[in-house]
This record gives sequence, structure tokens and C-alpha cells, in this order.
Amino acid sequence: MKTDSRIWHRPIGVIHSEHSAAEKTPIQPVYAKGCRGRAEIFPEFAGGLRDLEGFSHIYLIYHFHRAPEAKLIVKPFLQDVERGVFSTRAPCRPNPIGLSVVELVKMEGHILHVDGLDILDGTPLLDIKPYTEKFDLHDVKKNGWQDEVDETTARIRGKRGFRS
Amino acid sequence: MKTDSRIWHRPIGVIHSEHSAAEKTPIQPVYAKGCRGRAEIFPEFAGGLRDLEGFSHIYLIYHFHRAPEAKLIVKPFLQDVERGVFSTRAPCRPNPIGLSVVELVKMEGHILHVDGLDILDGTPLLDIKPYTEKFDLHDVKKNGWQDEVDETTARIRGKRGFRS
Repeated sequence: MKTDSRIWHRPIGVIHSEHSAAEKTPIQPVYAKGCRGRAEIFPEFAGGLRDLEGFSHIYLIYHFHRAPEAKLIVKPFLQDVERGVFSTRAPCRPNPIGLSVVELVKMEGHILHVDGLDILDGTPLLDIKPYTEKFDLHDVKKNGWQDEVDETTARIRGKRGFRS
Repeated sequence: MKTDSRIWHRPIGVIHSEHSAAEKTPIQPVYAKGCRGRAEIFPEFAGGLRDLEGFSHIYLIYHFHRAPEAKLIVKPFLQDVERGVFSTRAPCRPNPIGLSVVELVKMEGHILHVDGLDILDGTPLLDIKPYTEKFDLHDVKKNGWQDEVDETTARIRGKRGFRS
């Protein structure tokens, strides 16, 4: 395998949110409670949404289409200390793939209404997966540098001015 | 945005596991406890691994390089009932992107030793993110069709013959 191998993906839909400015967008769904929006799935993929409404939480996997150029060392939003990019959720990654777990509020045809949106308006959606008790709750023992960030600081920095 | 827009990604590394046959590979990390392996990051991206060792769990995002052709309706491994693909974690997705939360056991340079590997040997790795208490533990209320699958059945089907 070579690092110049290319793997192609295509949008399966688009995310509509109230976040138009990157610097004012909450950095994680946990800091975006009350922030609602929609994931609109293109009609050709709508058949794959069957049975999804039964899940309270879903993963959205998307393309950070407005990410700055990739960097290997970044300052995460939560802390003014330089960290390796893979130890952060920063957008400027070698592959700018975003991952958010949002609450699925309602489905109307090929439109998913969600809460906890920390994603910029117009973001191309790549995949949806269910987030479930059986698969996704892990017994975390160490949170790396995040253990140095107290919850109050995290909430203030995480919301980045978002009102809720 | 058009559905024929193309977004390209490149491997940042490769996953080495003991799973060479798809039909014998556990379907999720929770059914692959004791299954160790390595994620080898290509040297050009190794600088981004700084600070990662402090986290007990990490997301691996990868390319399902041996996935069958995409389908919108699939039978999930846990149940003999047809479901919309986005309500499952099946590999044959419109964008064959895989997501696993594994335990990070040890780092040696650009090699990550992990436990809970449910990934085929030779799989191209696209991204690594920390899985943390602050960001990734959500209050699941409904698990859709998975709520119909009892834990014993899930464990037997999930392991697919894997010994642990």
C-alpha cells in the first residue's frame, strides 16, 4: 500500500445547521445541546434509512469541507498546548473526516432532524451509523491531555459563544 | 453539491490483525476482546501521534477494502431481518468507511498495539481520533432493532467463531 493511493468517497447528503462561521461553531455535540438542524440524504440513498428512526443517537461521518490545510501538530480548542493531531478532534487532519454523535429527533422521509449539531452548514455527509448501548459505550480509563481540562473550562471553550 | 462529486482520502497506515477471513472476523470490538493487533502509521504521519498514548481508547476510521458492493438493504450480522444499511454497521455501504473503538495497549514509535480488533488484516487506515469520557459517552435511549437482540445471541453471533 502506498500513501499516494487514493480512496474515493462521494457525498450521500448534506448537513443543514445554523453554524455558518467556523469560529463560532461548538466543537462537539456535548457542547451543542439545543442546536438543531437537518441531515438531508440524497434521494438515491434514502432506501438505506429504513429502521434508523428507532435509534436515539447516530454517528454522522462527514467531510470537513472548510478545514484548513492538514497539520500534524495543532492546538486543540480545549487547551492552549500543542498536541499531535490524532490525539485531538481538530479538522485539519491528513484525511479531513469528521465524526459526531447526534441525537436523532425525528425523520421525515429522507430528512433527519437532529439535536447536538456541531457541524458547519453545507457540510457533505459521507455515512450514518447507529450509536448503540451494545457497541459504543466503552469503559474509558484514561483521557490523555483531556484529563487536564476541567469541565467548566471545557464547557466554556466547547460552546465557543453558542447560546445554549 | 452533486452525488457524483468526489472526495478523496489516502491511507495514513495499515492495520495488522489475525483476521484474514471476513466470515470469521468478529463484528465489533466488544466481541473481539483479547484480539490484539497493530495499527502501523506511515512514517510521514507519525508526528501526529504525539500525546495519543495517554488515551485508553481510540477510534480507528478505515476503508472496508474488501467490502462487497454497496447495498441499501442488508441483513445485519446480529439478526436475520432485512434492515436499511444506515441502521447497521455492515461494510457494504455507499461509502465503505469502517469505525471501531479499540483499546490502546501500547505505542512503540509509529506502531499502535491495540486490543479489541474486529478489522481484517491489511485494512487501510484513514484516521485516528481519541475516544473520551467528555465527548463520547452518550445517554442512549433507544437502540432500534438491536433492542430485539438479546445479549447471549449478540455475543454468539458477534464473535463469529472467534475464540475469546
